[in-house]
Amino acid sequence: MKLYDMELSGNCYKVRLLLSLLDVDYEQVAVDLLNGEQKSAEYLAISPKGQVPALDDGGTVINDSQAILVYLAQKLKAEQYWPADAATQAQISYWLFTTANEIAHGPCAARLVKLFGADIDYESATARAYAVFDLMEAHLAEREFLVGSRATLADIAAFPYIALSGDGGLSLADYPNIGRWLARIKALPNFVGMPGVS
Amino acid sequence: MKLYDMELSGNCYKVRLLLSLLDVDYEQVAVDLLNGEQKSAEYLAISPKGQVPALDDGGTVINDSQAILVYLAQKLKAEQYWPADAATQAQISYWLFTTANEIAHGPCAARLVKLFGADIDYESATARAYAVFDLMEAHLAEREFLVGSRATLADIAAFPYIALSGDGGLSLADYPNIGRWLARIKALPNFVGMPGVS
Repeated sequence: MKLYDMELSGNCYKVRLLLSLLDVDYEQVAVDLLNGEQKSAEYLAISPKGQVPALDDGGTVINDSQAILVYLAQKLKAEQYWPADAATQAQISYWLFTTANEIAHGPCAARLVKLFGADIDYESATARAYAVFDLMEAHLAEREFLVGSRATLADIAAFPYIALSGDGGLSLADYPNIGRWLARIKALPNFVGMPGVS
Repeated sequence: MKLYDMELSGNCYKVRLLLSLLDVDYEQVAVDLLNGEQKSAEYLAISPKGQVPALDDGGTVINDSQAILVYLAQKLKAEQYWPADAATQAQISYWLFTTANEIAHGPCAARLVKLFGADIDYESATARAYAVFDLMEAHLAEREFLVGSRATLADIAAFPYIALSGDGGLSLADYPNIGRWLARIKALPNFVGMPGVS
């Protein structure tokens, strides 16, 4: 299994985190985003959007970080993370789509501005970030994990850009439930960090 | 099964479309978005984001249009739309996340500006819309549906806001492959339209 990867990407990190939690060996292929390698013809043949991560599992290529999480859990029968029960799978999906939408355009976008100078409206990104923090804080008031009583793909998908929110100039000081949830993820067996998450 | 619904919402429409294709009876509950009913305490107890659609299936409440599609297909064992094979499920997921991200912030956002006067940057929405049209046009060059040889959740999720792009002042004239794909969806048995899609 080959992961097209970039160390500082939270989207790549969520895949590395799941692979570590599931104790799966894989090969990392660094894509040089700072020099535009993701827009080369060779890489666009792997990832039509020119994005990392991408996964190549013996010729089966999967793009999109959340879709890669679904692929790995379904293929490796990691039922804790992605159960077949329709209601649970849909509740997890709700957080995967929240990650692809509100978290990508909130805390992730704010970090892209602060860390990489991305041309994104920082004020809108900040407003979206605190709105999704409010949503999660209320949701986690009586729950240890986002869905059910154990970590699922919902937690793995949402974790990186919440944990990295300081990079985007955002503060979680007023969000104690989120703080405890972050600590629970970090305490999972085989947890790995990344620069900014330890 | 009860669907919290709004006639002009493409997100609600995609759920109505799947329910029709699967020939499922359900009750529609209109939510009065123009008068802010989605922000009432009563509705926020159903949908913490204050959004339509929401589905209540005998007390199991599912939010997010894409998550509702996953719920329905998984629960009703509609394997054509959401197969258990990991690679196929992940390829479909790729388009579900593309819908939650690029389509929501592209053609859907452009339509919100033009039809409802939403406070969203129209120029950015338009640029995102044509980028996702380009992606789909290339992808559909040698395919009849987005994944595999039959309609799946990928097509049902992406269809509404592509079909409604004229409402957002966007043109599909230069996208013949997308045009043929739209026609294929409209030809599915039990297809239903909505205002702007017939």
